Amino acid sequence: MHLCHKTIFGRSQFDSVIQRRCYRVSAHSGSCDEYPYLDHLAEVAPHLARKIRRDATMTTGAAWKSADAGPNRTPRWVALAKAEAATSPLIKAKLREKAASYEDCMEVAAKLTWSAYQMKNAPTPPAHLQEYLEGRFGSFDHDNTRCIVCRDYLDFNDFAAARRGRALIETAHANPRMHNAENVGFAHRECNIAQGGLSLTQFYAWIRAIIQRVDDGVSADVDAPGSHSSTSLLKDWR
Amino acid sequence: MHLCHKTIFGRSQFDSVIQRRCYRVSAHSGSCDEYPYLDHLAEVAPHLARKIRRDATMTTGAAWKSADAGPNRTPRWVALAKAEAATSPLIKAKLREKAASYEDCMEVAAKLTWSAYQMKNAPTPPAHLQEYLEGRFGSFDHDNTRCIVCRDYLDFNDFAAARRGRALIETAHANPRMHNAENVGFAHRECNIAQGGLSLTQFYAWIRAIIQRVDDGVSADVDAPGSHSSTSLLKDWR
Repeated sequence: MHLCHKTIFGRSQFDSVIQRRCYRVSAHSGSCDEYPYLDHLAEVAPHLARKIRRDATMTTGAAWKSADAGPNRTPRWVALAKAEAATSPLIKAKLREKAASYEDCMEVAAKLTWSAYQMKNAPTPPAHLQEYLEGRFGSFDHDNTRCIVCRDYLDFNDFAAARRGRALIETAHANPRMHNAENVGFAHRECNIAQGGLSLTQFYAWIRAIIQRVDDGVSADVDAPGSHSSTSLLKDWR
Repeated sequence: MHLCHKTIFGRSQFDSVIQRRCYRVSAHSGSCDEYPYLDHLAEVAPHLARKIRRDATMTTGAAWKSADAGPNRTPRWVALAKAEAATSPLIKAKLREKAASYEDCMEVAAKLTWSAYQMKNAPTPPAHLQEYLEGRFGSFDHDNTRCIVCRDYLDFNDFAAARRGRALIETAHANPRMHNAENVGFAHRECNIAQGGLSLTQFYAWIRAIIQRVDDGVSADVDAPGSHSSTSLLKDWR
């Protein structure tokens, strides 16, 4: 699918670093738009539309906030520029972990939108929007978006739900150090937490090793059977 | 093994709630002592001795701090008394989760001490101390204390190590809602985080289900093979 990609002149303090682009289809009528695919979510689930923009484009990083690294949330392409300029190897590496090009961030935002619409209980997008997203990322498989970590289904309603002030669905990375569309999806909050700093490949290897030790009868000094018990309590927990 | 259990009169603001006891062996010489088994760690690993006392006896609970629930850290037996008195069912339940009797807390402190001395690279306790701890919790199995979650070995040196200001070993609960010696042990920080609010039984059921979906070829929309790759990178992560 061909996109317009004309330069959009923004007013952000960070716009000297990158050139914003139009992501409408090429030869579109009307004005250019950086996030044309978010118009519908902005109406029906504005909190999610903001979340997708924020998670796709902004860094997080309370753990490494510092004068040298800059504030917690900056555009990922600013982090990329800062990483290039950083003199401390540690800061450089930390900034690179969260950094991404403008183009990758834009791909992530659109991919997350495509993914959200395929969740159980997702709203139905206007036909032209579905066509646009399918043109970029492939046909919808309705009700089939899964947590990238546990691979169980995600429920669109959980975007609005929260526990102790935290959303139940988070944006997650198959490899936490790569922010691009192939590597980003949604995950249950507790799955994202469990994955921690590991890639999914590492995470699966880790939990396989745990199950192996449990099945081998390796015990620690607590009353903790390696039982195959019902998972019904998990539902209460989520 | 018979313990002295004579009342010790303390000066803590909370001592009206409970009677502190002596945990030296019965008919000991010299003065009574609540934590006689921590003297050696207080010399060779004072940070750990403080950690054992704190984790065994004090609540944590930033997530539910409130005027009604009281401050984050109070003795667990105070939380127990507050839980009895609480009128809000939610606060009562939250307090109960972290609450424990003085006697259970004392058992936990001694059990954690016993466990720490059996880690790889642990210091060797004086003979009388090992005898005391073995009398209470069973014979030492040197270098064999494992993380109660992943069941891999724990290294005593990791008590002193930290990453981003957080200790690499934490006190953990097989069932997070029960604070007693049978249910408490040490765990890797990332294992404790991954377990979250689940019991170990639930946690193992959860990760079994994940592995099952990965092995069944269930995929999410990211580049994440369900590979059986090497776990060598895990070592870097820890």
